[in-house]
Formats: sequence, C-alpha cells, structure tokens
Amino acid sequence: MRDNEKVSDSTIRRVSAYYRATSDLMAVGRETASSYEIARRSGTTSPQLRKDLSNFGNFGKRGTGYRVAALHDELKAILGLNRRWRVAVVGAGNLAHALSEYREFRRQGFEIAAVFDIDPARIGQQWDGVIVRHFDEFLAAARTEKFEMGVITTPAAAAQEVADRMVEAGIQGILNFASVKLSVPEGVTLRNVDMAIELESLSFALK
Amino acid sequence: MRDNEKVSDSTIRRVSAYYRATSDLMAVGRETASSYEIARRSGTTSPQLRKDLSNFGNFGKRGTGYRVAALHDELKAILGLNRRWRVAVVGAGNLAHALSEYREFRRQGFEIAAVFDIDPARIGQQWDGVIVRHFDEFLAAARTEKFEMGVITTPAAAAQEVADRMVEAGIQGILNFASVKLSVPEGVTLRNVDMAIELESLSFALK
Repeated sequence: MRDNEKVSDSTIRRVSAYYRATSDLMAVGRETASSYEIARRSGTTSPQLRKDLSNFGNFGKRGTGYRVAALHDELKAILGLNRRWRVAVVGAGNLAHALSEYREFRRQGFEIAAVFDIDPARIGQQWDGVIVRHFDEFLAAARTEKFEMGVITTPAAAAQEVADRMVEAGIQGILNFASVKLSVPEGVTLRNVDMAIELESLSFALK
Repeated sequence: MRDNEKVSDSTIRRVSAYYRATSDLMAVGRETASSYEIARRSGTTSPQLRKDLSNFGNFGKRGTGYRVAALHDELKAILGLNRRWRVAVVGAGNLAHALSEYREFRRQGFEIAAVFDIDPARIGQQWDGVIVRHFDEFLAAARTEKFEMGVITTPAAAAQEVADRMVEAGIQGILNFASVKLSVPEGVTLRNVDMAIELESLSFALK
C-alpha cells in the first residue's frame, strides 16, 4: 500500500463512493459486481475505479468482477472505518446540533463524544446524551477522554483559536466548517467543508 | 466549451477550489500567479489544474502564469456564480437552520428564498427574514416565486416525495442531505451530500 499522503482527496472521495456502492449492492443481495456497475453507481468510470483501487492493492479478477462483500471490507479498512473514532465538536450552534443528530456518523464509526461552546445559554444543553460543556474545559477533557478528531462549527473569528487548542490537545484530524482558512502544524490533517461548493455543482449544471 | 455533462464532479470540485484560491490571491493584492501556486493552494498539482481548465478554454500564458482577476471571473462564470439563484429548502430542522444562517451561500449568489416543513411547531418561525411555511404550499409557491434549486433536509422517509414535488414544480437542481438514494428524471441534476464522507477523509489519514 502506498503512503496515504500520496493519495489525493478526490481519490478518497471516490473510495467513499465505492464503499457506499458496495453497501447498496450487499443490501440487495448481490454477491459479485463488475467494475462498470460499481463505477456507474459511484458516478465514475471503470478505468477510474481500477486506477483508484490500484493505489491500495489488487482487487477483483478480470472477467469475473469483484466479490462485493470482500471489496466492501477492504474499502472499509482503507477508509479507517473498521473501528470507532471519538469526535469532539466545538461550537454548539445549529450545524453542530444537526451533526449530533446525524445517524450516519455513528453508523460509520464516528462517535460525537463531546460538544463545547462558550455561550452560557447553550452550556448544559443535552444533545442525544451528550452535555454541552464550556470550552474552558476542552483541554482537560480532551486529555481524559482521548478525543481523536475535532469538528469546528464556531464563527470564523473563533476557529483558529479552537484549532490551536485541538492541536495542543493532541488531536490529529480536524474538520473545519468555519469559513476561514486555518493553519495547523505538519502532521495534523485539516479538512475544510464549504457547503457552498455543493451548490456550485448544481449552478454549474444548470447554468 | 465542452458539454457540461462530460465534466466530472471531481473536476467541478477542483474548479470550486481554484475559484476560492483566486479569491484569496485577490484579497492579498496579487495580480498574477503561476499554475503551481494556484494548484498548491487548491490542494492539487499544476498538470491537473491545466488539464481541468482545458475543459473550458484557454487560460494563462506559458511562462507568465495567470492573471488572477481575469481567471477569477472566468471561473465564476464557469461555475454559474455570476448571477443569483433562488433556492427553496424543505425540512426546517437544525441543518436547514444552519444553512439559512450560512453567509457564504448568499455571498456566492445562492439565496434561500423559502423554507417548508410539515411540523406545526416549525411553521411560522422566521429565519433571517424567511418564514417557514407548510409543505402543502410548496407547489403553488414554487410556481409563483420561481424556485430554481431545491435543498432537501427532511428525514430519509420523506425525501423522495419532496424530490417528486420539486420535479413537478419544474426545479432542475436538487441538493439532497437525506441519507437515502433518490430518483429523479433525466434532465434534473441531483447531488447528494453525505457529511460522513468528510470525516472519512480524516479517518483515512489518521488510520
């Protein structure tokens, strides 16, 4: 397997799509599938699928296609989904609330273990069993409760400070929803989610 | 310019990233930039950037790089962002509320013109000037108010019915946040947003 660093974000996105396609195929009882079918269900082409998978090893056999369940397990392992991840969310607004209600997170192994804010009106609220705490408690909590990923849903002005605190707490993966560029030291993986990008693929198609 | 249909989602995602990179460069007063710099800021490589842009015409000059403002305008037009789009949201939960507060949407030209739900507790709420209405009014409203895009933030069980109603109302672009596969007729563009995919790129990197 190649170094993770060399695999592009676009590839990982497609691997996520292949993973979902194999889930869907399993749900309808399919045991084998061609690269064409998996690719089509994932919105890409079979040469692209084969190229993407070649980053991670040898799958499938020419002529007989892929064994769906085996490929599903491999993709799950590639994506790091064969374990649970403890996620801390900072910024207890509507987006954080929506994320905490999002069942797919838990189903994929992402457990929202803690939520933090600085607004007294939000602190103490209970979301799906998780109590919103003051951000002042973040560092101590991160050390005791071993958060592995951080999600930032604060206003843009607060986001860098939150990221700094996450890094200080030893968190190595940060998902940022705030509309601001953050800097993190090497070795920490930062992903920015820009909801407008999703609408842009529509405006591109409709224009 | 090639047919939009032939340009992949991954390409559009990268074009969105190039668009943001040119915005950032303009914000710091840069007039020209190399393909290397724009690509690096967008998390990709200069050959990929040049390949992506070649789908849409001829930009930049070998040796002198790109004129940032001109490229920014071209990317804006490619993405269909040089106009406003009227967006209707169905499902007035936390996610919809978060989207309605998301300033980037408006800044990029996406105007949340209406929000619908079926829950009496939500109907009549006012979000940033938009009043939540009953979904029974959707079809009539869509015709009068000319919604161009629909965003589905309902529970999975309701999403297909909502999509059908959007199609019936003549909406040609649908962004679906519900965790369910929807079917829409040819000619309607459907994008599914799966928040778990964002976390998967972290678990991939951290595993």
